[in-house]
Amino acid sequence: MDETQGSVGTTASLSLRLGQAIFSSAALLLMSVGVEFYSYTAFCFLVTIMGLVIPWSCTLAMFDIYSAFSGCSLRLPGLMVIVVIGDAVLSILSLAAASASAGVIDVLLHFDRNYCPPKFCGRYQLSTAMAFLAWFLTAASSLFNLWLVASW
Amino acid sequence: MDETQGSVGTTASLSLRLGQAIFSSAALLLMSVGVEFYSYTAFCFLVTIMGLVIPWSCTLAMFDIYSAFSGCSLRLPGLMVIVVIGDAVLSILSLAAASASAGVIDVLLHFDRNYCPPKFCGRYQLSTAMAFLAWFLTAASSLFNLWLVASW
Repeated sequence: MDETQGSVGTTASLSLRLGQAIFSSAALLLMSVGVEFYSYTAFCFLVTIMGLVIPWSCTLAMFDIYSAFSGCSLRLPGLMVIVVIGDAVLSILSLAAASASAGVIDVLLHFDRNYCPPKFCGRYQLSTAMAFLAWFLTAASSLFNLWLVASW
Repeated sequence: MDETQGSVGTTASLSLRLGQAIFSSAALLLMSVGVEFYSYTAFCFLVTIMGLVIPWSCTLAMFDIYSAFSGCSLRLPGLMVIVVIGDAVLSILSLAAASASAGVIDVLLHFDRNYCPPKFCGRYQLSTAMAFLAWFLTAASSLFNLWLVASW
């Protein structure tokens, strides 16, 4: 089972990490640049979590690149447990943040037209969609690594 | 690894299922009886998902009771895969519904005092807290069963 695709050190894992970094950066930029996100707790939560996902994914992407080029496996039991727990926590927090933001946007669209001009609301929606994609990829990474750890 | 506590057929699993059924019923009743939940998509979503978690948890609790009393193991590979996927999907949806409701309640508390009299808002908050507890137990069941399947 050492060849589990998507677990640390494989090219599939590198693709997942790059996808996470791209989508979380897009969510962070769309939500934080030129938009008044700090009025809503859910949007602040989304920005915070995306700000945590970016360095996490970039660090693990570098691990994957190192593994791919050097041929050294970094699958030490302690490290794998940290990766699985980190991925699981971040994917839970990403889903919670994206869902909370989606709930808030729904309320803003239906009840508070004044608080949500189309230009802002479009960006909130796009940012939330990106956060959902980042969540999906983080959850996939977590599952692949958990599968590897469980099958040892 | 057949003795994984928390996987189908163990007493720990029965406790988890009963907890899920109790918390999701509480969330459903607090949100749907005497409160205008249907004005907000997030609250309708919460009620729908809690309405799915209740029969799912009760069915699996009956499986656990049958296993405990008859001594027959119900850990067939096909059944276990269905249980793991069902638990994973329901836990993701529960977390999404609870987070979306929490986001909506935050907006209602801060911006829309007219829409959220204390009596209603207290029940929305309690219902969301119960939904988070139901999510936590569903996620635990899913993880224990996934661990069992992965270690076969």
